[in-house]
Amino acid sequence: MQSVIKSLLQKNKSKIILVVLDGVGGLPINGKTELEQAKKPNLDKLAQVSACGLHIPVSYGITPGSGPGHLGLFGYNPLECQIGRGVLEALGLGIELKKTDVAIRCNYATLKDNIITDRRAGRIQTEESKKLTEKLQQEISFIDNVEIIFAQGMEHRFVTIFRFKELLTPDSALISDTDPQKEGLPPLLPRPLSENAIKVSAIAEKLLAKSKEVLKHNSKANFILLRGFSTTPDIPTFYEAFGLKALAIAAYPMYRGLARLIEMDAPIFTGTVEDEINFLIERYNDYDFFFLHVKKIDSYGEDGNFEGKASEIEAFDKVLPKILELNPDVLIITGDHSTPALLKSHSWHPVPVLLKSPFVLGRTSNAFTERECLKGELGIFQSMHLLPLALANSMRLKKYGA
Amino acid sequence: MQSVIKSLLQKNKSKIILVVLDGVGGLPINGKTELEQAKKPNLDKLAQVSACGLHIPVSYGITPGSGPGHLGLFGYNPLECQIGRGVLEALGLGIELKKTDVAIRCNYATLKDNIITDRRAGRIQTEESKKLTEKLQQEISFIDNVEIIFAQGMEHRFVTIFRFKELLTPDSALISDTDPQKEGLPPLLPRPLSENAIKVSAIAEKLLAKSKEVLKHNSKANFILLRGFSTTPDIPTFYEAFGLKALAIAAYPMYRGLARLIEMDAPIFTGTVEDEINFLIERYNDYDFFFLHVKKIDSYGEDGNFEGKASEIEAFDKVLPKILELNPDVLIITGDHSTPALLKSHSWHPVPVLLKSPFVLGRTSNAFTERECLKGELGIFQSMHLLPLALANSMRLKKYGA
Repeated sequence: MQSVIKSLLQKNKSKIILVVLDGVGGLPINGKTELEQAKKPNLDKLAQVSACGLHIPVSYGITPGSGPGHLGLFGYNPLECQIGRGVLEALGLGIELKKTDVAIRCNYATLKDNIITDRRAGRIQTEESKKLTEKLQQEISFIDNVEIIFAQGMEHRFVTIFRFKELLTPDSALISDTDPQKEGLPPLLPRPLSENAIKVSAIAEKLLAKSKEVLKHNSKANFILLRGFSTTPDIPTFYEAFGLKALAIAAYPMYRGLARLIEMDAPIFTGTVEDEINFLIERYNDYDFFFLHVKKIDSYGEDGNFEGKASEIEAFDKVLPKILELNPDVLIITGDHSTPALLKSHSWHPVPVLLKSPFVLGRTSNAFTERECLKGELGIFQSMHLLPLALANSMRLKKYGA
Repeated sequence: MQSVIKSLLQKNKSKIILVVLDGVGGLPINGKTELEQAKKPNLDKLAQVSACGLHIPVSYGITPGSGPGHLGLFGYNPLECQIGRGVLEALGLGIELKKTDVAIRCNYATLKDNIITDRRAGRIQTEESKKLTEKLQQEISFIDNVEIIFAQGMEHRFVTIFRFKELLTPDSALISDTDPQKEGLPPLLPRPLSENAIKVSAIAEKLLAKSKEVLKHNSKANFILLRGFSTTPDIPTFYEAFGLKALAIAAYPMYRGLARLIEMDAPIFTGTVEDEINFLIERYNDYDFFFLHVKKIDSYGEDGNFEGKASEIEAFDKVLPKILELNPDVLIITGDHSTPALLKSHSWHPVPVLLKSPFVLGRTSNAFTERECLKGELGIFQSMHLLPLALANSMRLKKYGA
């Protein structure tokens, strides 16, 4: 399908704004979902004149992580474009990955007589582990001409990047984890699972030896475990796939990282949602497509804070008119997945979406809620079809066949 | 899926009528779509007791041409069965294509010192170009034992057919266009893009030389450009795929041509929609399946004539009772795509459909409109699923598995 879309692309001056209210879909508590509870006159009014529906990020019953959730919204099939765990962890730490990188999730662990006695090094404090990671970086900056980059996460977690000089094949990071997953067992050796992974695996073996040497005087964090070896996904850039020059505006590093994987511009940004909108207004002439990420709604959902999630939806509703004033050719408001406070986690439930353009039926839905979006003209559909709909509504797709 | 359907087919004496109101789907102007505006008591009453829904011809956001639109309605996947531009142009001119044909869209052009100075030969009048095409036919009837057939289109456009004696492989027409797409450039040579295309390409080179000789005394139309080399698509006939003996009734050549591609009977026919229905009644005992094509609704849509489109829908509504009197086992009324007057063109919007049979839920939709069909039991689905639904409702499909 992507090759068909690509063959139909035509350029014009239209503007498309995609607002992602992270985790916006919910479930009822006392009869009402978070979206039904929230007072949000602007969103509801907009839904009335928009094409509404619900989208499924991956498949029925599948709860998506943020990676697949966003890839779907960006028009990619999340089942075909998987993001490795190491890469996702690195993006979450704000590391700018290159096409020549292998990213690895790492743990500090305790090793005694070649047996892992604690897979988390006593849940070492971040303050302490940060110092160790800095020391590793000082002592190990290259192995066999490959640059080694360390980045501290929370507690025992950190990420290691092997930055090669040359491009890697997609199978270069097919390497088994060294974490035996249970205490009382010896650590595993990294095993290359493809021919192209042999050289990467060799670097990993040397990294294990070197870091053991650097950490040998620690009683707890004296060893490291390696998991989720991964290269950046081999997918077309957003511009290649859809012909759109795109700006990502997100306060959280992981979402900027996801956008950067497909080469959207994603400058470092801190600030409120209102700041994000001001930034969008500032850069409005420079791009075709804007991805604006609103995080807090999801965070309250994850906390099981129903009222907090509803009030963050209300807060977005208040600043929505500033986006409407721009009068973009296409405005989409949706989430990357549902995060019902009831579940305190991401969920598999379809995500409400509204798409505003001059070329919709409208008048099918009275509000921007799960139940009202069900009545909408978009029906229930896979997330990856949303981007082609945005392209169609902005007149960026030619006719297919004569 | 097609092989599953085929394995389940069973014959009976049921009758299926598919009425295609070309381009019937629309968008609101002043709040109402064309279907909402039209007074059509018969269609609305029928919708109330039918299975209603909306179908998507190709995919979300994709605007289909008439070819993919109809292939979908006929039960084929339009992404898998593509119709080449040359073939479609030939069908539009009413040429009866054979499986051994290569069809090519041609333009008269002006060549000066081997530079194309006008790609349309000064938009030569049809009257004049027709004479040239007749002359070409007189002078060139065979090249290397391959029959050459010319057919005049409008102005500078015509079609050339290479009619081989033997069957061709599907890749035999993979030949590059000779049109440089811009004036001020030399014409391109046809280049075979597969081994099997070499012999076809050689004929094309000879055609270019011969036609240049024939046209050399014209000041404007002294050269021809070749585009869209194509063979007829390699797809099963309608009877093979669905076991239905089918009659196509269409006043426009292209739609008869599309039907003939899958070997429906499609006799030459001129007349009004009422004439079409009378013809259907006349031949009702001879076929299982009837495809009745109503063109004008689309034409008004293309013109941006909202009222005209609505009044053509009303006109169809008036003659609908004559079809209902036949009491077919399955009656489907829909379009091949949407053509909103608002857009003055085909569009990507799902197409309303009603399916009447004794085996539907019904009472979901109050009228035959986009918004009422949204409430229907068929939901939003891909066009190619409509034909299996017709087969099921006419009891022509056995159970799958035990």
